[in-house]
Amino acid sequence: METNEKQINQVITPEELLNHWQGHRGLTRKLIEAFPEQEFFSYSIGGMRPFSGMVMELLAIAGPALQEIVSGKTSELNEHADYGTKKANFLAAWDKATEEINALFAKIPVERYHENIVLFGKYEGTVWSSIFYFIDNEIHHRGQGYVYLRALGIEPPYFWDRG
Amino acid sequence: METNEKQINQVITPEELLNHWQGHRGLTRKLIEAFPEQEFFSYSIGGMRPFSGMVMELLAIAGPALQEIVSGKTSELNEHADYGTKKANFLAAWDKATEEINALFAKIPVERYHENIVLFGKYEGTVWSSIFYFIDNEIHHRGQGYVYLRALGIEPPYFWDRG
Repeated sequence: METNEKQINQVITPEELLNHWQGHRGLTRKLIEAFPEQEFFSYSIGGMRPFSGMVMELLAIAGPALQEIVSGKTSELNEHADYGTKKANFLAAWDKATEEINALFAKIPVERYHENIVLFGKYEGTVWSSIFYFIDNEIHHRGQGYVYLRALGIEPPYFWDRG
Repeated sequence: METNEKQINQVITPEELLNHWQGHRGLTRKLIEAFPEQEFFSYSIGGMRPFSGMVMELLAIAGPALQEIVSGKTSELNEHADYGTKKANFLAAWDKATEEINALFAKIPVERYHENIVLFGKYEGTVWSSIFYFIDNEIHHRGQGYVYLRALGIEPPYFWDRG
């Protein structure tokens, strides 16, 4: 096995974590695109939310939570923002969040990742555990979206097809 | 916001990453327990594998892949190991893997996380990206297991209920 030329004595750097998340977000975007327009808003299994509802949750967390981490100002979690009833609006909001995340991430120095924070006035953790939660929660709900697509007879994008 | 007494200029330490993963593995274990004995092996949506099949994949990756990272010896990915047809056998294999992961993780120094590796003779990445893939892949399939449980009318454990 070869080591990289540049020795980095860290598990992962902030830049790598950002790219990792944005890769996942790119895959989630592909899932939104893969859903039929109507089923994105209506299809559900076992009493769960349609995939649009899960995406609303993801949009409510990513940009706003990073904004809180950067500014230190508490805001309220709003999972019911009105993106209308067209997938195109969700995709536009997704792309806007992508830019926000890039801009905000750059403002979190590596020294802050072990700082204790409380997000949306109630979720306690460190900066790193909070960001990991955002990513994990997205993977979790996207995995549920995969089942919806399969149940609809639609081949989802590959799990490793990021970005 | 307060900083921790101990300043750690890293996003996440190897020990924290291990605890993070084992927390997720604890939750996946709860999902296995939540499935009815028969449905664990038979229930499926949209032509996907039953949850037992997904767990076989997770067991095929975690311990064996870490063993490869530590030893440098290539092995073959075997997602069809015979754990029989009882949930108890899967839970026992899960707990065995938990111990293996703890022992193997301790043998990966932080300097190695940016080393380029090829797992099971074909999956290229760094040590960190590989370990993140194991965790992400587990969250992905577990999210699918959540849909199965909901469709079966069973309340799954909370997503944040780790360990």
